[in-house]
Amino acid sequence: MRYEHRSVWVGVAALAATVASVSAVADPDLDKQMADSSNWASQAGDYANHRYSELNQVNASNVGKLQVAWTLSTGVLRGHEGSPLVIGDTMYVHSPFPNNVFAVNLKDQTFRWKYEPKQDADVIPVMCCDTVNRGLAYGDGKVFLQQADTTLVALDAKSGKVVWTAKNGDPKIGETNTNAPHVFKDKVITGISGGEFGVRGRLIAYDLKSGKKLWTALSSGTDAEIMFDPAKTMTWTNGKMAPVGKDSSLKTWQGEQYKLGGGTTWGWYSYDPKLNLIYYGSGNPGTWNPAQRPGDNKWSMTIFARDLDSGQAKWVYQMTPHDEWDFDGINEVPLADVTVKGKKVPSLVHFDRNGFGYTLNRETGELLVAEKYDPVVNWATKVDMKTGRPLVDKRYSPGTTGPDVNVKDICPAALGSKDQQPASYDRKSGYFMVPTNHVCMTYEPFQVEYTAGQPYVGATLTMFPAPNSHGGMGNFIAWDAGTGKIVWSKPERFSVWSGALTTAGDLVFYGTLEGYVKAVSPKDGKELWKFKTPSGIIGNVFTYQFGGKQYVGVYSGIGGWAGIGMAAGLTESTAGLGAVGGYKDLARFTTLGGSLFVFSLPET
Amino acid sequence: MRYEHRSVWVGVAALAATVASVSAVADPDLDKQMADSSNWASQAGDYANHRYSELNQVNASNVGKLQVAWTLSTGVLRGHEGSPLVIGDTMYVHSPFPNNVFAVNLKDQTFRWKYEPKQDADVIPVMCCDTVNRGLAYGDGKVFLQQADTTLVALDAKSGKVVWTAKNGDPKIGETNTNAPHVFKDKVITGISGGEFGVRGRLIAYDLKSGKKLWTALSSGTDAEIMFDPAKTMTWTNGKMAPVGKDSSLKTWQGEQYKLGGGTTWGWYSYDPKLNLIYYGSGNPGTWNPAQRPGDNKWSMTIFARDLDSGQAKWVYQMTPHDEWDFDGINEVPLADVTVKGKKVPSLVHFDRNGFGYTLNRETGELLVAEKYDPVVNWATKVDMKTGRPLVDKRYSPGTTGPDVNVKDICPAALGSKDQQPASYDRKSGYFMVPTNHVCMTYEPFQVEYTAGQPYVGATLTMFPAPNSHGGMGNFIAWDAGTGKIVWSKPERFSVWSGALTTAGDLVFYGTLEGYVKAVSPKDGKELWKFKTPSGIIGNVFTYQFGGKQYVGVYSGIGGWAGIGMAAGLTESTAGLGAVGGYKDLARFTTLGGSLFVFSLPET
Repeated sequence: MRYEHRSVWVGVAALAATVASVSAVADPDLDKQMADSSNWASQAGDYANHRYSELNQVNASNVGKLQVAWTLSTGVLRGHEGSPLVIGDTMYVHSPFPNNVFAVNLKDQTFRWKYEPKQDADVIPVMCCDTVNRGLAYGDGKVFLQQADTTLVALDAKSGKVVWTAKNGDPKIGETNTNAPHVFKDKVITGISGGEFGVRGRLIAYDLKSGKKLWTALSSGTDAEIMFDPAKTMTWTNGKMAPVGKDSSLKTWQGEQYKLGGGTTWGWYSYDPKLNLIYYGSGNPGTWNPAQRPGDNKWSMTIFARDLDSGQAKWVYQMTPHDEWDFDGINEVPLADVTVKGKKVPSLVHFDRNGFGYTLNRETGELLVAEKYDPVVNWATKVDMKTGRPLVDKRYSPGTTGPDVNVKDICPAALGSKDQQPASYDRKSGYFMVPTNHVCMTYEPFQVEYTAGQPYVGATLTMFPAPNSHGGMGNFIAWDAGTGKIVWSKPERFSVWSGALTTAGDLVFYGTLEGYVKAVSPKDGKELWKFKTPSGIIGNVFTYQFGGKQYVGVYSGIGGWAGIGMAAGLTESTAGLGAVGGYKDLARFTTLGGSLFVFSLPET
Repeated sequence: MRYEHRSVWVGVAALAATVASVSAVADPDLDKQMADSSNWASQAGDYANHRYSELNQVNASNVGKLQVAWTLSTGVLRGHEGSPLVIGDTMYVHSPFPNNVFAVNLKDQTFRWKYEPKQDADVIPVMCCDTVNRGLAYGDGKVFLQQADTTLVALDAKSGKVVWTAKNGDPKIGETNTNAPHVFKDKVITGISGGEFGVRGRLIAYDLKSGKKLWTALSSGTDAEIMFDPAKTMTWTNGKMAPVGKDSSLKTWQGEQYKLGGGTTWGWYSYDPKLNLIYYGSGNPGTWNPAQRPGDNKWSMTIFARDLDSGQAKWVYQMTPHDEWDFDGINEVPLADVTVKGKKVPSLVHFDRNGFGYTLNRETGELLVAEKYDPVVNWATKVDMKTGRPLVDKRYSPGTTGPDVNVKDICPAALGSKDQQPASYDRKSGYFMVPTNHVCMTYEPFQVEYTAGQPYVGATLTMFPAPNSHGGMGNFIAWDAGTGKIVWSKPERFSVWSGALTTAGDLVFYGTLEGYVKAVSPKDGKELWKFKTPSGIIGNVFTYQFGGKQYVGVYSGIGGWAGIGMAAGLTESTAGLGAVGGYKDLARFTTLGGSLFVFSLPET
């Protein structure tokens, strides 16, 4: 199971850099920046979504002395997801709506430039679960911002001047953006949010240099719209991979419901440069009332593998056919070589909202492992490894009971055993470090009519801590993706809504909704250090080196779905799609905030 | 000059506590809490406005190791003035509008209670210079909040429940509050803001237990309104104290202009328990256009000494008769025994906006010292020690040139050589540690008509760094109040808008508008430590001890008059009464924020 992954990925990056002159489409700038572990050049630190750093100046033996080095306010309250980027001596900081971007001189923390877009505040009510933004991307000397109003902006990294902009969608029909754009090779890839407004989820590729739209791949629709080749796009069928066949999406929807089909794309995407494949997940199908959309609702709740250049889908895997719980499949898809039954497989690992941790062969799409990563999961007894389908427990099936029936004690809640908060991969142990939720719900679907730009939810939810609680509403766990087993689990009072970072210093970092940033041992989860930041943490921990010194940083600013009550000032327990009541105790521990905290070891 | 002050003040506090049963009007609770230097029981730490702590665990030899112990977001952006209070194991944190109050358990930084008033946001445009609030007061088991909308609220310190409320004024005519309430004996004393709206300044005393209004003393008006006894209220006249005589205010105004007379009272008040006198200053006279209000405009720009119980004025001293520059006299009035010409005098010291540092006999009101504390001051050549009047240089006199004439290069600017940011008193050296501005202005008065609730300013200002700059727009200085001389001066890039704290650890702390909190030596101003907080600092540094450990804290949150451009999103250089242009460079160094930072030494 143990696997020293570094050589592979560093090798790939180095290779990509050296062949840049041959492959005219590569971005040598980003490859170079990413290969230098002093930088934090992309949201996950690499293309594979490892969130792992080779830096080890801060390590298990000295982390107890870690202290605040410097801090910065973003000037914005509400939920702060994502993390800054670091390229050389500059840090690029972003904020939730209105999505300010600051270029910070690391020498003295002054601002080289500020980009403060003027966005129409009408976009705020159309953002289902807080006005979050998951951060910037870097490539080709440019910084990319995906604004809430769907405008994708390329800024000159040196001056902050706008190089190009592109419009991704239309907030008037509920289309917004919360995802980070991703730079892969010569393209900027972005998605769309709005699964609670009946929008059509899609992935969009833009040319890195010009901003020209290159391809758009929808999550549901005709084969052309979803960029499937019926004969070549494969999926797990009866224990093996087989072509999806003609109209694989259309056949699973009634009438034109697929046009309100959701399948939004607001997560973290991965890229395998060798296979030239990008990976991402799609969200819930349109309306949360399952009775209004019979069928599997493909390809909502699906992991896609697409060729980066053509956009064509190579394979797909649907985690939750005919969703009845809002178990979006958008969570990150880290790539690693995992040993399954004694055999090393080029894998993709995915901790789905539905509570199952999946391991797939990322080259072929074959299903290798699908096991619960929180024992409380009860909506399905297990995943049938032959069909790849979850075996649904009818007691927890709002689609079976029909509308206006209150289905109780479903675990996990709609925000899943894990939401967007990304796991990290420990290249040393080969285990995944996973921030999780431990929350259940009551779900009552109801009939809803579609009106463009209005919520199209059709369900009333209440959330509550899992009854067989392990001590809180969340756990931070280590996961063996080869066997599908929890290695260790550390309980937390609230859901761990912050992204993890593992380092070569034998440390894994994450934040808590109370506002603590913690360092624990990846070996056993033992807590080695913690610090209370001004507000709850839903950002992702990152690290960089500057002037020979390692720094670890994280945003502090409560919000996101779990913190929406506090962020939007809601008190009704079913508000925020049920999260307000579920997380009502947060107010005793934290308040709204918006700042960046950067830590380092004291001068010796 | 050196004077060990501690014995006197501790003695007074102890005496007050022991005679509580005799003097039914004392508040034994506050006296007791204040005598324990583990607490920070009032905004200035004592009645005398010393902002001095006997704690010395953090001292000149170890302050370099000071690090962030914990942090807290207030959940509000814009300017954070004042400081929290600490009573035992609870910290009481306040915020700018909407003036939230949090009781924080010092053991784990959870909230014991939150008080979040619902105030009409219409009050915001009526607040001239940011939505600041200078903090809470404590006494008789209650926490007192002076809301922006002029509501004074008494909260039960244990539960946060409202015990009583009182309405101080009317925002519809421009009356608001930014000052901290002050508890002296059995009374809560508060004032009023709105000098830019033609309001009538006044001090108001409420009964600590019931909230019953006891007396109201106006700054201008009839003898009864201003609570003067023409025969007994004294002022400095021809080199000695003499009765003010009949209609001392009315005689210095034309017609009924005194009814728009300003003289607001939003500063820091002092109290001498032995003399039973309270001291405070009044602000600018109504309209900034001097041509509209001939006369001395008494008692604007004046220090008042009033009997706490009766409210009657014992003596007054007007710093700036017939103001032509907006040199409000509201700055703090610390009490200390100062040696003047070899004789120890029970004194009151005052660093006026007009750039002169005054020393008065606080018992009699006699003028002892009046010298410039910034050499750049040019509007007056000096203060005539016989009349107590400044000798105005006509070149910098907008009242002489008349309306619509642009008077250039006046120093200091309207926000003075110092604004509300309070100085601290070093009980060891006897010197005052003074945060100052180093800013000049152009001033163009114009005719303005009064409309209730509308700005009544009548002047257009631009501000700019003092031309003979000492390196920046501010200095942090040590001042000898016995001789009226600067002992040392430490230049800062921007005005030092944060209140100072001196400690027995041979340290003086203050914050900067860039966001640094600094510790310097009170002996020579040498910088011993600094830390960059998330936003600019306009709060006052405070200290306390808990669990045997000393903590030093300060609010971080840019705003106030100097930061109004950033706080209110203004860009026009004459906006914010000229401050926006003057401080435009701030944007390169900081952003809006709102958090509390608490520092301590690392565990050894």
